[in-house]
Amino acid sequence: MSLLVTKFGGSSVASLERIHNVALRLRELRQEGYQLVVIVSAMGDTTDELLKMAGQIGNEFDPREMDMLLATGEQQSAALLTLTLQSMGIAAVSLTGWQAGIMTDNAHSKASILNIAPERIQQELNKDHIVVIAGFQGLSTEGNVTTLGRGGSDTSAVALAAVLKAERCKIFTDVDGVFTADPRIVKEAKQLSQVSYEEMLEMASLGAGILQPRAAECAMLHQVELEVLNSFKRQQGTIILEGNRMEHDRNVSGIAHDLNVAKIALFDVPDQPGIAMRIFKKLAENSINVDMVIQSATRGHHNDIAFTIDRDELTRALPIVNEVVEEIGASGMSYGNNVAKVSIVGAGMQSNPGVAAAMFEALAEENINIHMIATSEIKISCVIDETEIKKAVRALHAKFELDKVK
Amino acid sequence: MSLLVTKFGGSSVASLERIHNVALRLRELRQEGYQLVVIVSAMGDTTDELLKMAGQIGNEFDPREMDMLLATGEQQSAALLTLTLQSMGIAAVSLTGWQAGIMTDNAHSKASILNIAPERIQQELNKDHIVVIAGFQGLSTEGNVTTLGRGGSDTSAVALAAVLKAERCKIFTDVDGVFTADPRIVKEAKQLSQVSYEEMLEMASLGAGILQPRAAECAMLHQVELEVLNSFKRQQGTIILEGNRMEHDRNVSGIAHDLNVAKIALFDVPDQPGIAMRIFKKLAENSINVDMVIQSATRGHHNDIAFTIDRDELTRALPIVNEVVEEIGASGMSYGNNVAKVSIVGAGMQSNPGVAAAMFEALAEENINIHMIATSEIKISCVIDETEIKKAVRALHAKFELDKVK
Repeated sequence: MSLLVTKFGGSSVASLERIHNVALRLRELRQEGYQLVVIVSAMGDTTDELLKMAGQIGNEFDPREMDMLLATGEQQSAALLTLTLQSMGIAAVSLTGWQAGIMTDNAHSKASILNIAPERIQQELNKDHIVVIAGFQGLSTEGNVTTLGRGGSDTSAVALAAVLKAERCKIFTDVDGVFTADPRIVKEAKQLSQVSYEEMLEMASLGAGILQPRAAECAMLHQVELEVLNSFKRQQGTIILEGNRMEHDRNVSGIAHDLNVAKIALFDVPDQPGIAMRIFKKLAENSINVDMVIQSATRGHHNDIAFTIDRDELTRALPIVNEVVEEIGASGMSYGNNVAKVSIVGAGMQSNPGVAAAMFEALAEENINIHMIATSEIKISCVIDETEIKKAVRALHAKFELDKVK
Repeated sequence: MSLLVTKFGGSSVASLERIHNVALRLRELRQEGYQLVVIVSAMGDTTDELLKMAGQIGNEFDPREMDMLLATGEQQSAALLTLTLQSMGIAAVSLTGWQAGIMTDNAHSKASILNIAPERIQQELNKDHIVVIAGFQGLSTEGNVTTLGRGGSDTSAVALAAVLKAERCKIFTDVDGVFTADPRIVKEAKQLSQVSYEEMLEMASLGAGILQPRAAECAMLHQVELEVLNSFKRQQGTIILEGNRMEHDRNVSGIAHDLNVAKIALFDVPDQPGIAMRIFKKLAENSINVDMVIQSATRGHHNDIAFTIDRDELTRALPIVNEVVEEIGASGMSYGNNVAKVSIVGAGMQSNPGVAAAMFEALAEENINIHMIATSEIKISCVIDETEIKKAVRALHAKFELDKVK
């Protein structure tokens, strides 16, 4: 009998009614002959409510205790789903993270899975139970309850699918799958039937918000075939698998965009080895992630350097950058939070040199000015004015004929 | 350093404000130089809310899954109390039942503690932590989360006090301690500074409702010195300890009463061996507890038999009794739910034969009719009309001069 690992997020189990819907869904998969392992998140906003309660106690939290508190949310939803399955006459059992053998490191609130001892899960599967597992949590090597951080349930699911050698890992969520662009912006946007891990990673980190990048990475590493699909509809989702197992019928798979962007520019930075590093080291020490970087061609002994960061980090970043400007003797800096990033993503573009030119052409045709450009093997990103973003996404979607994608 | 085990019930941790009050209390005990292990119940009506949710799913519950669900309540309050202690600068750590090494049998929803492996608790105490433990729960020999049943947190506390050889186990609750009678009925009722385990057991099972009888039994078995006290006041409670360590300055320690009583009488039961057994066996099979039994002197070859049960079991009991009446050929039955039980309890009465007579005399002086009498070594109970109960409690309280008790 084939094994499926399924995962249902917080919105899919937000009420007893929705939990019942999940149970119906599982019954269908059962009737198709699958053995089932189910990973659940906490119900709706349980986690936020628990966080709010803790927030009333103080500002600084011992992450060990926060994990102890938050892990109860998933334990509750796992028990409630199991009770629902049983009320429908379906044999099921719930397991906490530690019962499921999910061992993590000791980094409370953002623990990494070290390994999974699947004996207990296997025992329960052998008894023909649907095994419902509390997502987002594990047991540290010190014997404490840990959580994997927000979205960690995706990672629990992928890791379990890898260890249990599941046929597929189905991530049930509240969207239909991965689209060629945000359907709220491009009404012709099409759902993709397949994307590669790499494409998914680029799209996920560009804010498509469907799957945790961490989970996609874990799936890629262990070659777990994923499917992202809507828990409220009965239709196929998007399958995520190794690029070389896909049919490449397209150069570009999707247009991603990101409004959470701010740009910082430093003027007349002395052209000495290690200067640029000092800026980025200082930002990294403060956990501020730098995305795109450009350095102008040397003018005399000075360069201009510009880079982007998450817009919501800007207030934290500015004093740090100002300090560095004085330290290294740059002539000044400027910043802008009225920019955005648009990207084309596609595993097929690696072997197709005309793709970048087509992108710049499409933006030029719309008179959109490009501030910065960054390229990787499967992605080209441009920073443009935020006001132009919708126009840019639509123009690129049309240029690469993504409305015709299957 | 001496170790105290303390336990705070659901009403003592019903809100973050009350949890803060508990933390202040613990800080005081800490400043007095005690090592502290703290057992907490779930916040206020958390358990009832979870039960209600499960009730919306179905009627029949897998007790294993119910335990999984309910155990989250205590885990949450343990984490919240720990976070509160930490916010006050007090080192603390929370442990679940399984982390605290509380091993139980597999009787889900009413598990018994088999043994406690206190290594982890000891480790945390050695680090000078206040150790906050989720009450009411443990880990079964099959590796599942179990609960000890309602009021099980008292039992967790007593068992931990026994294993850790605590100086005393303090049960913080919302009453001041054990009284000579219900203060709502007898305004002269006095708080007892000490009672024996046996007296506490009789009072607890008579509905004083302060301490789970099971916990009192466990304390007696392991000679754990208990104190029941009010978590909202700064005053001494009632200490419960071995009778021979007390000063016996009284014959009677308290007047207990119980309104949850119904009386059933069977007429003309054939005087054959084993007949009475049949009635009680049938009731026992249906988990209906029989309290007092009287059998009239034989009239010819027939007896009348009367007994009491919990009043809330009456509807369930009547069809069973009717069936037996036909089966054994009794001439009929009658029942009454307008009766109540009044008892005098006192370890001192064993060596004082005049106590029973004084009780009957007090009731006679008030013209109260006695339906049934039962005696044990430290208790005499009478079934009377429910309407007379307040008068009876007051008369007995006066007769035994309990307003003068210290």
